[in-house]
Amino acid sequence: MSTLDPGRVLSVQSHVVSGYVGNRAATFPLQTLGYDVDVVNTVQFSNHTGYGYTNGHKTTPEQLTAIFEGLSTNGLVSHYRVLTGYVPGAEALTVVAEQIKKMKEVNPEILYVLDPVMGDMGTGLYVSEDVVPIYKDMLSIASIITPNQFEVELLSGISIDSMATLHTALRQLHTAHSLPHIAFSSIPLPISLVTKLDLPAPPPSYMCLLPDPIPPWYDAVGVGEPEDEVLVCFASTWEEEKLETWAFALPTIRGYFSGVGDLFSAMVLAHFKNPESQSDLPPLPHAVSKALLTVQQILLRTHLYSLIQTGTSGTATPRPLHHSSSEQHGSVIPSDAELDAIGPVNPKDPKRKAKRMRLRELRVVQERKLIVDGGQGWPGKRLDWQGILGHGM
Amino acid sequence: MSTLDPGRVLSVQSHVVSGYVGNRAATFPLQTLGYDVDVVNTVQFSNHTGYGYTNGHKTTPEQLTAIFEGLSTNGLVSHYRVLTGYVPGAEALTVVAEQIKKMKEVNPEILYVLDPVMGDMGTGLYVSEDVVPIYKDMLSIASIITPNQFEVELLSGISIDSMATLHTALRQLHTAHSLPHIAFSSIPLPISLVTKLDLPAPPPSYMCLLPDPIPPWYDAVGVGEPEDEVLVCFASTWEEEKLETWAFALPTIRGYFSGVGDLFSAMVLAHFKNPESQSDLPPLPHAVSKALLTVQQILLRTHLYSLIQTGTSGTATPRPLHHSSSEQHGSVIPSDAELDAIGPVNPKDPKRKAKRMRLRELRVVQERKLIVDGGQGWPGKRLDWQGILGHGM
Repeated sequence: MSTLDPGRVLSVQSHVVSGYVGNRAATFPLQTLGYDVDVVNTVQFSNHTGYGYTNGHKTTPEQLTAIFEGLSTNGLVSHYRVLTGYVPGAEALTVVAEQIKKMKEVNPEILYVLDPVMGDMGTGLYVSEDVVPIYKDMLSIASIITPNQFEVELLSGISIDSMATLHTALRQLHTAHSLPHIAFSSIPLPISLVTKLDLPAPPPSYMCLLPDPIPPWYDAVGVGEPEDEVLVCFASTWEEEKLETWAFALPTIRGYFSGVGDLFSAMVLAHFKNPESQSDLPPLPHAVSKALLTVQQILLRTHLYSLIQTGTSGTATPRPLHHSSSEQHGSVIPSDAELDAIGPVNPKDPKRKAKRMRLRELRVVQERKLIVDGGQGWPGKRLDWQGILGHGM
Repeated sequence: MSTLDPGRVLSVQSHVVSGYVGNRAATFPLQTLGYDVDVVNTVQFSNHTGYGYTNGHKTTPEQLTAIFEGLSTNGLVSHYRVLTGYVPGAEALTVVAEQIKKMKEVNPEILYVLDPVMGDMGTGLYVSEDVVPIYKDMLSIASIITPNQFEVELLSGISIDSMATLHTALRQLHTAHSLPHIAFSSIPLPISLVTKLDLPAPPPSYMCLLPDPIPPWYDAVGVGEPEDEVLVCFASTWEEEKLETWAFALPTIRGYFSGVGDLFSAMVLAHFKNPESQSDLPPLPHAVSKALLTVQQILLRTHLYSLIQTGTSGTATPRPLHHSSSEQHGSVIPSDAELDAIGPVNPKDPKRKAKRMRLRELRVVQERKLIVDGGQGWPGKRLDWQGILGHGM
């Protein structure tokens, strides 16, 4: 018997005392949108690992089991929406997977957003290898997954180097695991290809820092970065034996930001089939469109703040929308040259990196109004797979 | 050298996965008011202990030490506002006390709100006895403490049974520990005494559930409750060798609610010397006035919600403002008679108590607008100690 509460979310992710990754990037934005979020913390660290140094502890598999037992005994497991992010280690992940399987057995209509946090193109796998088969197994209970390129390739076993291989990878993930939805967070595509796909640009009002009119691809071609690529996000749904895929071209913001993928996944969860968040788009592209808008606006404001704080603003028109040296949601450590370029730093300051990281913590609290009143969504376009594959893109 | 960030809060309290006590009652409201809250969780439990059953784990003293070390190493300890609540055990509390002492040595101007969570008049001491001397020692580093009656008596060693003994207890706490501010959350006082003190009633607009006009003492005289008492909150400041005390008369809400004291302490921290939250009152009575308004409004909405969900609303004019059988912020377990009075319950339902507790979880998320736009504050009155003591009240 279903006794699900549509307003309740169960979020299982990491906790950092300071900064905004994992549950810290997901919980407050979800609460700001009115969700009653139950929060299981899989670790408690002082700060995220991007600082170069962190201290804290993991929640053991036994402790996770005990927490779920306490919830269950009190009849507190009635969440319609479930979100999982980083879970350290195969044993802990197994506990989480078993818990969600049990919940789905009782209530198959549960909406489960799985972020299969395993690595990225820049650094490769950053979890232990025995986690990979568990995530593959979990695909069959997920409603939506939010992988990056590295994770799509790892889960599908297909290397993506064309629209055809993208099509094969998405189709493989959907059909092999009865997986209804994939929100593929971002992949760099050749600018020539993006031009052929004719993806729309967002209105200038969404991008307060952008020059108006927006140059082709939002000035995505950045200084010292590959000049032939644009980041694209895909919202893919498997329906009636057909792949329905929407694409969204993204401006990217130079530098290292953490928690972006976590915020994205939380906002996809928040806006998917949310009665208070609707548009003419189908459920997944709608949710992705809203999630991208929130993430991009928070990122822009965070970037502007860090520029102001490091004293580089005011000297020139801000040009924040440069192409990252890797994927947008990834973990690229900026070079010293990049550091020097963004402001005066003291090489004798041992906390230089920590200070920089601190300035780049997502400003979800300060920019909380954007989460609620962010606008209609990021413009995207439904892909004509037949035409694309026919043209051999 | 001070490098404090006025917008940053460090909050050290308990974490429950589901529900709103400890950090779960403090963090979201503080974030909603714009504070960048760093959150150290001293426990991770499935739910609060009022459910009768809970499962989870404590953060060990070693783990707390490691977390503070991580923050410190990364230069992340720059909080102007610090809040501590429940910390389990003497050893863990010592770690927290040492950390805050270190912070105050570097930056004496830190605003530290200490909620000395030890017990209440209903249940007595609910922490181990060796915690008491540590809290006494911590009074000297606190800017504001937010004790209940049990904790005021325990910390001062003075039993409060008159305005004279209240005066002595407050004076003793202030002078023996160089403690500038005490927000004494609530104490039941004889209605005859409250009449003599002539405390103001809040405007009806604050109390959406109240009959208009408000009967004397807000209909505080409840069914089956002592008919001769009213709850009063005191905001006490020691200034120029003088005790300045403001009093606030409170309507109380029948039944068991958890996290009320935690929300109160967080809101006192939020509104004390907050440039965006000002009135003609001195800093402490202003903060207490705003905190009481937020707490009372959230409590009323939560109470109304639980009445509606248990099916007792609509049958009569809501009369929520009854006198609790003990202090407002306490932990009185309602009797079965009370349970039967609030709605139809199934005695065969083993989760009856858990369901009732769940319905009484503070609705901080759903009523988040009240936290920001709650109104001017709760009306109080500055006490004329000379007159009061002269009249032997």
